[in-house]
Amino acid sequence: MSFNTFGKIFRFTTWGESHGPAIGCVVDGCPPNIKLSEKDIMIDMNRRRPGKSKFTSQRKESDKVEILSGVFQGKTTGTPISMIIYNEDAKSRDYETIKNKFRPGHADYTYFLKYGIRDFRGGGRQSARETAGRVAAGAIAKLVLKKLIGKNFKIIGAVTQLGLLSCDRNKWNENEIRKNPFFCPDKKAVKLWEKYLLAIRKAGSSCGAIIELRASCVPVGLGAPIYSKLDSDLASALMSINAVKGVNVGAGMNAAFLTGEENSDEMKSISGKTKFKSNNAGGILGGISSGQEIIVSFSVKPTSSILNSRETIDKKGKNTKISVKGRHDPCVGIRAVPIGEAMMSCVILDHYLLNRAQCS
Amino acid sequence: MSFNTFGKIFRFTTWGESHGPAIGCVVDGCPPNIKLSEKDIMIDMNRRRPGKSKFTSQRKESDKVEILSGVFQGKTTGTPISMIIYNEDAKSRDYETIKNKFRPGHADYTYFLKYGIRDFRGGGRQSARETAGRVAAGAIAKLVLKKLIGKNFKIIGAVTQLGLLSCDRNKWNENEIRKNPFFCPDKKAVKLWEKYLLAIRKAGSSCGAIIELRASCVPVGLGAPIYSKLDSDLASALMSINAVKGVNVGAGMNAAFLTGEENSDEMKSISGKTKFKSNNAGGILGGISSGQEIIVSFSVKPTSSILNSRETIDKKGKNTKISVKGRHDPCVGIRAVPIGEAMMSCVILDHYLLNRAQCS
Amino acid sequence: MSFNTFGKIFRFTTWGESHGPAIGCVVDGCPPNIKLSEKDIMIDMNRRRPGKSKFTSQRKESDKVEILSGVFQGKTTGTPISMIIYNEDAKSRDYETIKNKFRPGHADYTYFLKYGIRDFRGGGRQSARETAGRVAAGAIAKLVLKKLIGKNFKIIGAVTQLGLLSCDRNKWNENEIRKNPFFCPDKKAVKLWEKYLLAIRKAGSSCGAIIELRASCVPVGLGAPIYSKLDSDLASALMSINAVKGVNVGAGMNAAFLTGEENSDEMKSISGKTKFKSNNAGGILGGISSGQEIIVSFSVKPTSSILNSRETIDKKGKNTKISVKGRHDPCVGIRAVPIGEAMMSCVILDHYLLNRAQCS
Amino acid sequence: MSFNTFGKIFRFTTWGESHGPAIGCVVDGCPPNIKLSEKDIMIDMNRRRPGKSKFTSQRKESDKVEILSGVFQGKTTGTPISMIIYNEDAKSRDYETIKNKFRPGHADYTYFLKYGIRDFRGGGRQSARETAGRVAAGAIAKLVLKKLIGKNFKIIGAVTQLGLLSCDRNKWNENEIRKNPFFCPDKKAVKLWEKYLLAIRKAGSSCGAIIELRASCVPVGLGAPIYSKLDSDLASALMSINAVKGVNVGAGMNAAFLTGEENSDEMKSISGKTKFKSNNAGGILGGISSGQEIIVSFSVKPTSSILNSRETIDKKGKNTKISVKGRHDPCVGIRAVPIGEAMMSCVILDHYLLNRAQCS
Repeated sequence: MSFNTFGKIFRFTTWGESHGPAIGCVVDGCPPNIKLSEKDIMIDMNRRRPGKSKFTSQRKESDKVEILSGVFQGKTTGTPISMIIYNEDAKSRDYETIKNKFRPGHADYTYFLKYGIRDFRGGGRQSARETAGRVAAGAIAKLVLKKLIGKNFKIIGAVTQLGLLSCDRNKWNENEIRKNPFFCPDKKAVKLWEKYLLAIRKAGSSCGAIIELRASCVPVGLGAPIYSKLDSDLASALMSINAVKGVNVGAGMNAAFLTGEENSDEMKSISGKTKFKSNNAGGILGGISSGQEIIVSFSVKPTSSILNSRETIDKKGKNTKISVKGRHDPCVGIRAVPIGEAMMSCVILDHYLLNRAQCS
Repeated sequence: MSFNTFGKIFRFTTWGESHGPAIGCVVDGCPPNIKLSEKDIMIDMNRRRPGKSKFTSQRKESDKVEILSGVFQGKTTGTPISMIIYNEDAKSRDYETIKNKFRPGHADYTYFLKYGIRDFRGGGRQSARETAGRVAAGAIAKLVLKKLIGKNFKIIGAVTQLGLLSCDRNKWNENEIRKNPFFCPDKKAVKLWEKYLLAIRKAGSSCGAIIELRASCVPVGLGAPIYSKLDSDLASALMSINAVKGVNVGAGMNAAFLTGEENSDEMKSISGKTKFKSNNAGGILGGISSGQEIIVSFSVKPTSSILNSRETIDKKGKNTKISVKGRHDPCVGIRAVPIGEAMMSCVILDHYLLNRAQCS
Repeated sequence: MSFNTFGKIFRFTTWGESHGPAIGCVVDGCPPNIKLSEKDIMIDMNRRRPGKSKFTSQRKESDKVEILSGVFQGKTTGTPISMIIYNEDAKSRDYETIKNKFRPGHADYTYFLKYGIRDFRGGGRQSARETAGRVAAGAIAKLVLKKLIGKNFKIIGAVTQLGLLSCDRNKWNENEIRKNPFFCPDKKAVKLWEKYLLAIRKAGSSCGAIIELRASCVPVGLGAPIYSKLDSDLASALMSINAVKGVNVGAGMNAAFLTGEENSDEMKSISGKTKFKSNNAGGILGGISSGQEIIVSFSVKPTSSILNSRETIDKKGKNTKISVKGRHDPCVGIRAVPIGEAMMSCVILDHYLLNRAQCS
Repeated sequence: MSFNTFGKIFRFTTWGESHGPAIGCVVDGCPPNIKLSEKDIMIDMNRRRPGKSKFTSQRKESDKVEILSGVFQGKTTGTPISMIIYNEDAKSRDYETIKNKFRPGHADYTYFLKYGIRDFRGGGRQSARETAGRVAAGAIAKLVLKKLIGKNFKIIGAVTQLGLLSCDRNKWNENEIRKNPFFCPDKKAVKLWEKYLLAIRKAGSSCGAIIELRASCVPVGLGAPIYSKLDSDLASALMSINAVKGVNVGAGMNAAFLTGEENSDEMKSISGKTKFKSNNAGGILGGISSGQEIIVSFSVKPTSSILNSRETIDKKGKNTKISVKGRHDPCVGIRAVPIGEAMMSCVILDHYLLNRAQCS
């Protein structure tokens, strides 16, 4: 069972609402004796936090993580690591005008009908603010993986599609990803993306995105058939991120269009090492990592909270219109990059530990 | 933890290898007092089983399900329902020639590297034969859902893309789906698909497919945020099916291309009932069912076992070539339709029960 | 999997060390729309907290619970309820002298050998301070149970054996339990217990105890055979409390001495209601509640941290002696009463919800 | 969640009713490459099966285990091991006369009220026949543990109390346990026990028992605080066995009577090895194995199905009397010995694997 807990052995539980006093995350099952400080975690937190550019929400949050347990004299102890992040810039009054209305395309409606009650301030628990806890957990997972697998282990994500604009995936440049505010991997696309997103913001609208994640140096053998396959766990992990509507592994939906010959990633042994001629599988065969780079991608729908007026209903079932002012990302997909990386890190670490249990 | 078990409250465990004496499934957590017979289960079993047309594998299996427990005087008792299906047409000698080689694009390689041992006969545990157990579990889930929700509850799947050939999704016709050997929903497409797939089979090749699933009359409120969202559980369920590489919910990957206005499914109250103007969300908002039709789709890659020769390596790491004779589906995607329906049924029932626990 | 999480549907996760900045508990799966305030929780917190009498540890902790999420406008929302309790009176220097020694009978040794690292201050995670989080979770469970089952539902615990001194279980008086510092149910025993425990404290020693828990008005039908029986979950819950070494349900270990005739709790229908002539079963048959009062008891071993010197070894494996000064309970069993009640409340609520899922 | 599944990594699911066609067990998460045959499993099956002496039920079952999956060329493959045992000697007509009555002290009543339906033949799912599956799983666990830990690893159980008759635990003799039909460890007690149990059987009555289990050579460090402690998992495992009412670890309930000095198992380093002066802890400190022998005991209540007439009610709530003819054990505690060993083996293996995941 797992309402707000993710993972099997390396597990984390998030809690908190957008406009409550704080949000947080409890990481359980972390191996002991791993060096860990709040600084290590802030690297990824800073990549996710809002208010850094005109292309994301203007909510100002330092997202400072405080570790409350599980670390002693700078090292993990194997006991739960509790982390807290105080909400600093909640402006609940922004939500007063829409507290009885349901934003179409948003979880307002379903939360209310499921629970009969909801914290409407800033979307409450439905807010993407929840993902800060995931990024904190993911930062720990990355550190552990680097310790266990080696320094070459790496997970990196990028936005490869911003609304209607694509970029050249073959120009994938990690330095470029770090530099521009879109996590765009292709330098040439950046300028156009800037203009495009500013126009969307100005128009009171929003757009979707596609994010690609690549993990290198993942050992062969991770993934637990049949119902905890590495890819099914990744699909679950990514689909659980706010606004995600599709997940691809390797060729993904396009696998339908390939022939058997095209699709089979032929293998060759070169100096005793297994090499693959292609990677349509995205590094996963039968739910188990093959040693190839693991490549997954996911789509994020456009932000539901837009300035332009939409038809909807209110709590009493009356027809009405809604226009959302507040502070919102014109493309929530951008900040989904570090979140996707975090989820992928947690899944891979979890399977690393699980494989150690059954097969070491 | 869930190596070979799926679900939270309505749970099933499958076991068995393609060429072992039998395969099976144990369903646990099924509500008591539901009428159930082997006949009920055979309806879906017959839709999945091979050997029925020239478009699927020629392996002849009756797939007769025998219930060994959990049913008393024609009704479920709330105790585990064990089902066994004997393997009748296993021809293990077909695999002698490739037992030391790894089929590229297949799980041969990863199973062997993970476990250090594998049953190579017919793919062993990696075989899609495992999915027979899922269909049996899904048949039970459907029955229970019809009892709990009402007779209008329905899940139906179809192949909407066969390799390079699409069909008109707007011509969705359930009777047509039942008639043709492709589960194709659009009558006009069938003839062309026949010719296309025969040509692929003749060429010793294979092709992929896209399957769409639709569930109607699902109550609002199912799904457990944050990490057991209805869509993340569906994604995990579908991605766990052999050869699946992508999962879409509603607009899916295409959500990236929409604007906020287009994407928001506007709501209207008509005679006290909530109506949505569109269904980009696929009936799921914030991981919770909205009462709209739930629409998901997934891609299936082309069968890896093809007659045409491919380069690969063997168990000792030597370079070699492989050509797979045996009996294989030219498009495994076709038989994925009842499997997808089964997984969707299990996920929806599971969340129905789970919601009853927390929110009734 | 459940390192630091307890429960299936109503689940809680505790975190924190004895001498860290804070400890806490995240409750997940709580039904929505239940009135809940910090005040409600403090009733049980105050019954557990140390420093109230000369018969418990002199550590002064207000154990003030702060709710950080999951409650909106005074009601639960169905989202995780995060609670934090700051440590106020940690005196870590008390532990400097024994930081490299293992207290015999304590988890110092096993934690160190398992994890290779441990927070030695106040026992770190091994400290009974962790149980404060359980009591907070249990207080919520009790409230929910009263809402769901009715006001007559009640769980009450008492110390029935203090070291070598017993009391008359048939004199069970709930008002008396509330009055005396031992949770002793029999007024006559209290004075003697006072003298006895003061003598033990003075002698630098400690003693064990037996606690009995009684739950009334538990509906028939709770408990999930075979491996989540109500009694096996209670056994697990109680055995997880620090220093507990034995758990009895109903006649418990004494069931061995009964004949079949004595043991069978004969049934009679009186005015349409099922009545039992005795309760050797402790209200549980086949792992399912029978509608009778549920009666369990458990033993708590004497506090390991005693003033009197004991032989032991240190981290380097050298022989040494240890005498523990610090602040310790002469009988940890006393404060185990509200902890036992909390665990029992959580188990019963969990099964109430689980039964609603499968059998409602 | 775990209705009929036990364990975390090494998991097993049992299914089947006493008088159905078969019962069975699916073991999941078993490490690969372990030599395993049906013969290995039959050793323990034969120790549990009924009909071997006049001191147990006269039902004749060969309890022949057939392995249907998960083993290839004599070795485990890491995939689920499905085992089936056909019921050979079910005499359902024996139960016709009591099918509408509830045996007092039995789960007849609670199963019927929980599920609204029950298979009354031989107790259906409530029957101790279910435990055959556990013994099969335990036999596999033992084999794996011997492979992983070494040949010195050993779990052995014995009956130390038969109704009112005890034996001398200090005379614990493993050869003796294997020889007599009571698993009695003390040769001197056997004769008296024979007479005693025959008298009880003749009188149409039954008696309880206490079973003690000892595991030696368990490595230090197994057990996952806080809520999967080794002792809380053992308590849950043993309490889940039919008719068990109490579980002790080490000193158990008697820990209440000890002083802190007596209870602390003092430690000494002798030639670099940690030695304990006593073992009140039963080899478990803070929920983690200490390297000492693990000692637990549990009580089994007298068989509820007795010849002597008892008052009860029937399905319609009418008062009536019941006298159970059928074939029943005069002391079910005897056959609980191999069952207890099996559960203990599974718990220890599970924690061995779990510890390997987090701490290796």
